[in-house]
Amino acid sequence: MSQSQSGNQPHTQFVLTLSCPDRPGIVAGVTAFLLEQGQTIMDAQQFNDAETSHFFMRVLFGPATAEVPLGKLSDGFAAVAKRYDLTWQLRDRSEKRSVMLLVSKFDHCLADILYRWRIGELRMKPTAIVANHPREVFDGMDFGDVPFHYMPVTRDTKAQQEAHILKLIEDTGTELVVLARYMQILSDWMSRQLVGRCINIHHSFLPGFKGAKPYHQAHERGVKLIGATAHYVTADLDEGPIIDQDVERISHRDAADDLVRKGRDIERRVLARALRYHLEDRVILNGRKTVVFTD
Amino acid sequence: MSQSQSGNQPHTQFVLTLSCPDRPGIVAGVTAFLLEQGQTIMDAQQFNDAETSHFFMRVLFGPATAEVPLGKLSDGFAAVAKRYDLTWQLRDRSEKRSVMLLVSKFDHCLADILYRWRIGELRMKPTAIVANHPREVFDGMDFGDVPFHYMPVTRDTKAQQEAHILKLIEDTGTELVVLARYMQILSDWMSRQLVGRCINIHHSFLPGFKGAKPYHQAHERGVKLIGATAHYVTADLDEGPIIDQDVERISHRDAADDLVRKGRDIERRVLARALRYHLEDRVILNGRKTVVFTD
Amino acid sequence: MSQSQSGNQPHTQFVLTLSCPDRPGIVAGVTAFLLEQGQTIMDAQQFNDAETSHFFMRVLFGPATAEVPLGKLSDGFAAVAKRYDLTWQLRDRSEKRSVMLLVSKFDHCLADILYRWRIGELRMKPTAIVANHPREVFDGMDFGDVPFHYMPVTRDTKAQQEAHILKLIEDTGTELVVLARYMQILSDWMSRQLVGRCINIHHSFLPGFKGAKPYHQAHERGVKLIGATAHYVTADLDEGPIIDQDVERISHRDAADDLVRKGRDIERRVLARALRYHLEDRVILNGRKTVVFTD
Amino acid sequence: MSQSQSGNQPHTQFVLTLSCPDRPGIVAGVTAFLLEQGQTIMDAQQFNDAETSHFFMRVLFGPATAEVPLGKLSDGFAAVAKRYDLTWQLRDRSEKRSVMLLVSKFDHCLADILYRWRIGELRMKPTAIVANHPREVFDGMDFGDVPFHYMPVTRDTKAQQEAHILKLIEDTGTELVVLARYMQILSDWMSRQLVGRCINIHHSFLPGFKGAKPYHQAHERGVKLIGATAHYVTADLDEGPIIDQDVERISHRDAADDLVRKGRDIERRVLARALRYHLEDRVILNGRKTVVFTD
Repeated sequence: MSQSQSGNQPHTQFVLTLSCPDRPGIVAGVTAFLLEQGQTIMDAQQFNDAETSHFFMRVLFGPATAEVPLGKLSDGFAAVAKRYDLTWQLRDRSEKRSVMLLVSKFDHCLADILYRWRIGELRMKPTAIVANHPREVFDGMDFGDVPFHYMPVTRDTKAQQEAHILKLIEDTGTELVVLARYMQILSDWMSRQLVGRCINIHHSFLPGFKGAKPYHQAHERGVKLIGATAHYVTADLDEGPIIDQDVERISHRDAADDLVRKGRDIERRVLARALRYHLEDRVILNGRKTVVFTD
Repeated sequence: MSQSQSGNQPHTQFVLTLSCPDRPGIVAGVTAFLLEQGQTIMDAQQFNDAETSHFFMRVLFGPATAEVPLGKLSDGFAAVAKRYDLTWQLRDRSEKRSVMLLVSKFDHCLADILYRWRIGELRMKPTAIVANHPREVFDGMDFGDVPFHYMPVTRDTKAQQEAHILKLIEDTGTELVVLARYMQILSDWMSRQLVGRCINIHHSFLPGFKGAKPYHQAHERGVKLIGATAHYVTADLDEGPIIDQDVERISHRDAADDLVRKGRDIERRVLARALRYHLEDRVILNGRKTVVFTD
Repeated sequence: MSQSQSGNQPHTQFVLTLSCPDRPGIVAGVTAFLLEQGQTIMDAQQFNDAETSHFFMRVLFGPATAEVPLGKLSDGFAAVAKRYDLTWQLRDRSEKRSVMLLVSKFDHCLADILYRWRIGELRMKPTAIVANHPREVFDGMDFGDVPFHYMPVTRDTKAQQEAHILKLIEDTGTELVVLARYMQILSDWMSRQLVGRCINIHHSFLPGFKGAKPYHQAHERGVKLIGATAHYVTADLDEGPIIDQDVERISHRDAADDLVRKGRDIERRVLARALRYHLEDRVILNGRKTVVFTD
Repeated sequence: MSQSQSGNQPHTQFVLTLSCPDRPGIVAGVTAFLLEQGQTIMDAQQFNDAETSHFFMRVLFGPATAEVPLGKLSDGFAAVAKRYDLTWQLRDRSEKRSVMLLVSKFDHCLADILYRWRIGELRMKPTAIVANHPREVFDGMDFGDVPFHYMPVTRDTKAQQEAHILKLIEDTGTELVVLARYMQILSDWMSRQLVGRCINIHHSFLPGFKGAKPYHQAHERGVKLIGATAHYVTADLDEGPIIDQDVERISHRDAADDLVRKGRDIERRVLARALRYHLEDRVILNGRKTVVFTD
């Protein structure tokens, strides 16, 4: 739903997301609470995973009449959450998440994300751009006020460099890390630090062509479509929960370089979509899979 | 959600669909009722149209423990419906709708629908196949037990023929009429009789190329994609509420005949999808538009 | 290009396909020959694989004025072919290839191919339908004049059954075998017999989810798109040269059974497309890949 | 084919495009000439429009051994062209076309084109960015060395402003004008000056939703897919020859503003593709349609 339907709608909007073991009465309990608090529902989606007997919900709501502060709503909701054993999160929709962008040499995803952020499409606060290549590699790109950090890395300095990155994440209050074609494999240790808060774009339609040089693998195999996959990072390389994927048709005329070119378009739109879903609280983890309440 | 997730789920499943002017408390009211009746929610989707201030909802539910008959649920729900001014429908999911198929010469949509029905993908009861061409035109097609009616039509006999069709609709208890490439334009009178219960497939991406010979129009214009549109029939030709659309890429190499060929694939999958959405109570009318709660 | 553009075009049409080590003058040599023979080109596509230095070409042509018989053209062309070291094939476009269809229990691809054949979309002669399940499994399907052969198979009888199939292929003059969801893995021996003349449809987007139960694998992994792959059969399971692939979007709401349902649509359109490409001489092998001159 | 397959290929590459009334011997004549000149073909595509009896061809070639200058080839080819009554063009593939970009307030297409140009994906020389809004509207965009011209326009000054633009086109040697969401309708006079060398992006799937505010029209109509169309500008608004189109799925949840957002992605990729096709000499006009030899 549009960010800008302010006409008929309350000024404040809250997003509630939750998951829990399934049992009768959850929706009734949650919505009765919202009604009591004078809130009206603008959008809601539920999903009941019959296989795992888990329930997932996202509700967008706001005050029907008088404003109620977030703190008061959260305090009140804690009792409902306890009753149904909910894992939950309640946020003011207008609050922007802090996002750090990691990049290597190819900057098409970075440029795309920064553009979407500038025009207000991606509602976030970039805390830093971190690259293992120096600033001059990104010549011609205007980073505005976003601090740039050059953090080169070699096999020997990897542990140190990751510690630096993690410190920067903490110092800047970064809530989400985006690997925007960051071509370094995070260590297991680092991956574990960032569980559920680090999105990577892999340049293949996973699970096909894991690992290095996927477009060359795809060219070698002679597939007729290539793709890209945005997923949460886990210690298991290219195996994290998938948020979004897309593909495009190719032909025998396309050399590996053409796949790289065509792939850039897929990568940037898949990553931007996954990032938007995350920022709008549309993604909930479901084991090694995701529930994505799309618009 | 799968038709066959019977493992963890109650045997009886009900589908409730509703729309109403928006106001606080609708979801709370509906779900509280379901909880009282010992029902548990398997799937639910809501939509709040900020422009028209109308609310739409589809709930799939079933007994948490003891079975409750449909009649009892319906009677009880009437009070909820009155309170919120609901337009609503409550159905046993296992009950199959009666569907009549109208066709002219091209039978690819008919063959496709019958196949999907045979293997259980489309849950319906075909009441009749009505064609303005004789049975031998459909040589090589096995209609099984579905009665075939040859109802030729000319400009002079149109009123009569439509009256015959309408009588057959009534006699067979047909709930939905599908124009599966029926190449006759229904009269205003007939269209009005069938409002909300007649789906047509138009062989273009509406609103482009209304009227006759859309593939030839598309070829003439030099478009790079062709499409098909499934919509509810209204008195206003090719202007009814759209249920589903799809397109496919074409090239300068495609003559008008190639568009006809490529279009058959689009038509049959769009019509089958729209039909399935209707049969599963996923489509709710919203003025001249539709709300489609897809899976 | 349309099959039916007979208006401005010669009645007889020939399709020439060829591949060879690349060198200057091939196109000039081939087209000079056609001009000498009084032929005019209706459609032509070339491809030069820079990696392997191999050249591929497909030409559709016909007599500009007087008809020339296929035999005379073939004899004449042999000299050109020798000069450029061509692997080639020259066919009358109106001649239909003999095709045998192998199937197991799921008959959606079979039904689809037979329908497309009946309406003239797939120009072929079905020689036989071979199934490892009895005729009654396909109840409600009209096979017309196409002979049906029930050839059950167990681990112990596999060698024998394959020998029977191969004999039937020879006896019927079958030029192409289509595994239309034939759920038996061909032996290495059988695969080698059928190199380049056996197309399989695998129900995943290869190279993802090889082997058994790919939709269940896809559901387990949590991918956001599912696909199907048509490829030539080789002794290396699911590794043969890919002819066509396609995908469709799914969501967390889709259980494995829903993937099976949605997948049927992908499978049948991918297989039909690959089959049409083969029948129209649009596919040329290029090592373990294919060159596909699409329309 | 890749721009960078320099390994096995001659350094100089030429692109020849031609169209003419169809007659036997054209391909033979053209390719015999290339062979005589010591050229080898890397890629070639032909199309014979049976309806208009017109022939179209694109050939990418280069010296098999010794380099031959463009001028000598052109002079030699003139005789072939005369013999077959060809409309033709022969260019050194490495020469970049001069392109002027016109824009209004929305700069997503402009930003996208400039990015693709910077990384070498679009091989062109931007001559100027012309906007009817002042430079500060594009704050945060780095135009590098490309001159920016603010040319405001009102109903009264339109003739004057267009004359200025045309003078700039001439002064800068601009070969192609791109209306990258330039929201002014060119006058008939201006359109005629730019026939065949001005590409516009219209934010709908033409011929649906011509004219102003197409996303609002689409939202109003309730379509299930939205699209964008890149076409050559003609005096007839939104009726020029289409180069490329694409669409994306939307739902009832999408307000008009969401269509605008989703549309930006479609617009920029369709315009970039059309622009690339033009720059690589892949587009040939065929009356009010185009022949596009895609890769």
